Amino acid sequence: MRKFEVTYEPSGRVVHTPEGTTLFNAAHWVGLAIESTCGGRGTCGKCKVKVLEGDLDPTPEDHRELPAEEITQGWRLACKSEVHADHVCEIPQLMKAPKAATAGVGRLVLLDPSLVKVHLELSKPTLEETKSDFQRVSDALDLAGYGGIEPTLEVLRSLPDALRADDFDVTAVVSGKHLVAVEPGDTCDRLYGVAVDVGTTTVVATLMDLRTGMAVGASSGLNRQAAFGADVISRINHSMSGSAAVAELQEAAVGTINSLLHELYREFSVERDNVYEAVVAGNATMLHLLLRVGPQPIALSPFVAAFLHPLDLRAAPLGLDIHPEGRVQTFPSLGAYVGADIVSDVLATGMAQEDTLRLLVDVGTNGEAVLGSAERAVATSAPAGPAFEGAHVRAGMRATEGAIEGVVLGEDVRLQIVGGNDLEPQGLCGSGLIDLVAQLRVSGMLDEAGRMLDPAELKGHPLAARIVEHDGARSFQLTDQIYVTQPEIRELQSAKGAVAAGIDILMEALGIAPEDVEEVLLAGAFGTYINPESARTIGLVPAVPLERIKAVGNTASEGAKMALLSFREREIGFELPKWIEYIELSADSGFNDRFIDKLRFPPIDKVTIP
Amino acid sequence: MRKFEVTYEPSGRVVHTPEGTTLFNAAHWVGLAIESTCGGRGTCGKCKVKVLEGDLDPTPEDHRELPAEEITQGWRLACKSEVHADHVCEIPQLMKAPKAATAGVGRLVLLDPSLVKVHLELSKPTLEETKSDFQRVSDALDLAGYGGIEPTLEVLRSLPDALRADDFDVTAVVSGKHLVAVEPGDTCDRLYGVAVDVGTTTVVATLMDLRTGMAVGASSGLNRQAAFGADVISRINHSMSGSAAVAELQEAAVGTINSLLHELYREFSVERDNVYEAVVAGNATMLHLLLRVGPQPIALSPFVAAFLHPLDLRAAPLGLDIHPEGRVQTFPSLGAYVGADIVSDVLATGMAQEDTLRLLVDVGTNGEAVLGSAERAVATSAPAGPAFEGAHVRAGMRATEGAIEGVVLGEDVRLQIVGGNDLEPQGLCGSGLIDLVAQLRVSGMLDEAGRMLDPAELKGHPLAARIVEHDGARSFQLTDQIYVTQPEIRELQSAKGAVAAGIDILMEALGIAPEDVEEVLLAGAFGTYINPESARTIGLVPAVPLERIKAVGNTASEGAKMALLSFREREIGFELPKWIEYIELSADSGFNDRFIDKLRFPPIDKVTIP
Repeated sequence: MRKFEVTYEPSGRVVHTPEGTTLFNAAHWVGLAIESTCGGRGTCGKCKVKVLEGDLDPTPEDHRELPAEEITQGWRLACKSEVHADHVCEIPQLMKAPKAATAGVGRLVLLDPSLVKVHLELSKPTLEETKSDFQRVSDALDLAGYGGIEPTLEVLRSLPDALRADDFDVTAVVSGKHLVAVEPGDTCDRLYGVAVDVGTTTVVATLMDLRTGMAVGASSGLNRQAAFGADVISRINHSMSGSAAVAELQEAAVGTINSLLHELYREFSVERDNVYEAVVAGNATMLHLLLRVGPQPIALSPFVAAFLHPLDLRAAPLGLDIHPEGRVQTFPSLGAYVGADIVSDVLATGMAQEDTLRLLVDVGTNGEAVLGSAERAVATSAPAGPAFEGAHVRAGMRATEGAIEGVVLGEDVRLQIVGGNDLEPQGLCGSGLIDLVAQLRVSGMLDEAGRMLDPAELKGHPLAARIVEHDGARSFQLTDQIYVTQPEIRELQSAKGAVAAGIDILMEALGIAPEDVEEVLLAGAFGTYINPESARTIGLVPAVPLERIKAVGNTASEGAKMALLSFREREIGFELPKWIEYIELSADSGFNDRFIDKLRFPPIDKVTIP
Repeated sequence: MRKFEVTYEPSGRVVHTPEGTTLFNAAHWVGLAIESTCGGRGTCGKCKVKVLEGDLDPTPEDHRELPAEEITQGWRLACKSEVHADHVCEIPQLMKAPKAATAGVGRLVLLDPSLVKVHLELSKPTLEETKSDFQRVSDALDLAGYGGIEPTLEVLRSLPDALRADDFDVTAVVSGKHLVAVEPGDTCDRLYGVAVDVGTTTVVATLMDLRTGMAVGASSGLNRQAAFGADVISRINHSMSGSAAVAELQEAAVGTINSLLHELYREFSVERDNVYEAVVAGNATMLHLLLRVGPQPIALSPFVAAFLHPLDLRAAPLGLDIHPEGRVQTFPSLGAYVGADIVSDVLATGMAQEDTLRLLVDVGTNGEAVLGSAERAVATSAPAGPAFEGAHVRAGMRATEGAIEGVVLGEDVRLQIVGGNDLEPQGLCGSGLIDLVAQLRVSGMLDEAGRMLDPAELKGHPLAARIVEHDGARSFQLTDQIYVTQPEIRELQSAKGAVAAGIDILMEALGIAPEDVEEVLLAGAFGTYINPESARTIGLVPAVPLERIKAVGNTASEGAKMALLSFREREIGFELPKWIEYIELSADSGFNDRFIDKLRFPPIDKVTIP
């Protein structure tokens, strides 16, 4: 991807932007806000900047919105001016402080949603002026800065009644180029959207008030697709039995989202018909299934998705229970295994827009990793299998009440249990398993190769007696009932080896060493619960000082929220695939060697504990 | 509407084009073909012209398709260059003689459909190259000159199977910017569209083979909406009882079209799924009902339509039985009572593109008239009521077997009867009624004011005895059973008065006299059957020499066929509302005076019979 340098005056901020990015988005990329009220449609004329260096032809929108004299002076609408050369340009000062909200990982987001309501007191038709109902609305929207709006058939059908119900006083609901609804009277006090993160395991819906930028409430629940398998591959396997199975999986996903929505609507007294947009993040398979697009080729070499680009769809045909003409907007994916959830993570963390060199790791069935900064970013996905979720561990369980989520091995065994340490432990969840393995390393019971030592080799070790045989396999006895075997540890080792090898390939691509990584961001549900120190101890993440490792929570939801609150953020999110290089590990001939290398645990003395 | 002058070299042809028209369409307007293979999307780069005079900024498409050097020399893509100044430009000679078909009223139409099939032998994905199925198709289409194509959800759903059914050998079906289907293998030998004229009375469907430009067959039938009333107003009245009634009317219209389509598919062995486009003409009310948009405000002052602009819709939600993802494209209307059928008439006759000054008259419940030439054109609609269709005449009937369709009054009465003159006459159809009234005028039995003379005033007239009393009204006895009364003649007089007054207002708008009209075109079913001489005798059309009056048949269907065969014609058709001024008679304060004036029949001696 060819990049050009754009310098924005008076701040002097420089951005290296892929060819074809607009001056508007490139500025936003580095946090410079340019005035705009039309959502980047080229119709409000407010985003003009003065191009000081570099030839930039005026666009039809420039001719429509700007006086010829200004065009001669170099003024251009930033939202329609694509970068095909190096430029220096000047941004006029904002006329007023923009409204903003905090979203993502501590990011300030301008409150400038793609979804807007416009109250229109329309002129009434007379015998002398008989334009059509649609033209009347369209002309009024054009005057208000929302030109070129397209109605759906259902909106056309609603127009004659809607216009006449309150004497041509209406509110138009606009999402991007779509006229979503025309409602009688002034309904501007009700404007909601929903951010949805469709995880393989958990689905999270956050209802957003787009007037205030605040979350009204959030709700989460298990993805009902779990009935068809715990992970992406088993879901795809189910889908292979035919289109009825794909439909079944879709209904499960839509059903899950809808029940969360209904819960939110009920609890916060919000009407479904005042929710006009859903922005959806999720891995590529989840998005395929949500749209009832067969995901089979994703699971078969060479692992190809049906679509990766962002989609903008009507809600009704999907069955998503927002306003039927509302829009469902999916995030783009980078590849079949680096999905829209990761793109949303990247948006939420700002990692591809800032100078700090960061590594983002989101571990589930696949370990996805993104490494980089505004200068350059690369991403990959490593096949981790379900080990991190404790799925193939006999004692494995979800992080629900009674699950061991933390382990400390000292003179004795101390456990942290979900729901309270006085509960009877029922099993081990993913973070507990990682803690256990890390602690086995730290306490010297597991060697670098991943071999559990013989009790005979652990003479005098206070926990030596806990190493026992179960079904012919050496095991560590955590409680009377709960133990973890050597083969189970091998599986985790293999999973972390794959992720670590992937990260290694990313570091090589950028030509950096582990110590160059300024921040490691652990994303997703797993990232929230994992003990960063343990993750480092087992070598899942590079050996960086502990304070550089941060759990950033459900960033996929955060990115979706940002895209709801600001069309600027949405455009950045949708352009991210242009900015991030996707590295397919299956195609990397060095991956296997590296994987074998990374199977080993890091030497304990090399772990820098600050 | 501001107009600019564009001169095309080397022919030197000049066109005065409304602001914003493209150089491509303006050239086509005067019959100059510019090379193009992408359907005007700005993606094939073939339509470049050299701008010799008048500043014209290059567009983003110019930058993408043309070398910088050519842009500096003045080359521009004609399809994306909008006219905002006077220009002189040079069109390169066509590289090869374009394929053309005859359609419309003897018009030569380049065979260049908006709907195309593109056979794509796609590269197969590998581990190194894993773009999504959609991206693979989209990139290949882009290379073939069809960039920026948008898939529907259903097409996305079909992609994984379609690409893999024949090893990534597929045929893409593209209509405008829509990806309508992706079919396994090479299916380019099957490409059909259907032109539909939804008349209030009759619906005509013409199945077109878009590879050859030939009509495969045509089928027509009565509009099943007839069950809800004979004319537009009674249909609208029915629709007022609520949305269920609107749905009923839609189902009737769609049912009519579908049964015609099924007939065509069966007779000509064409598969429904190989018909990907329907271009629909019809009056505004018919289009509203076809789309299930409530037409009520059309019937109530100030007579406003919900939409007049052309619509491009998926077939499936409308229930139209072509390929479910096929496109249904409606013609634009000029006003609530000068509908898409008239726009299609104007396209088919070429009257707004040529220098000949023509008057087009399409008479039904409303008498629509368009007057003008390439220089300027005006249109109106006069409320004629059902008189021309003989609806309120006791002896009135449709033009079916046994209807009197022609009358000559000489020494005796001679009748022309539908189905053969030996049949027993059953009644009088519209053209028969007009003939009768004209003949009554010619034979001196009806005075200029429309009064049937007393037999006492007609001493010696061979037909004097046929003037008799029926139910207290003076009547003319046509056969033993069939007679026409004075009040019935008054009703026809009133209808023709309204139409003639409308035409008069159009002539005044253009500042011309009746003798300036070079051709009178009688369009529609009525135009086909009416005796031009009688139309002139009763004053329905201006008193021009008879050879200037032509029945042009079902031009609404012809215009729709043209729009199927050529994207160039389609664009012209869709732009026609910009070129034709609509005059609303209800808003014309002079209309009533003129109407009363035009109630009189023209003096017989002033009718120029050549």
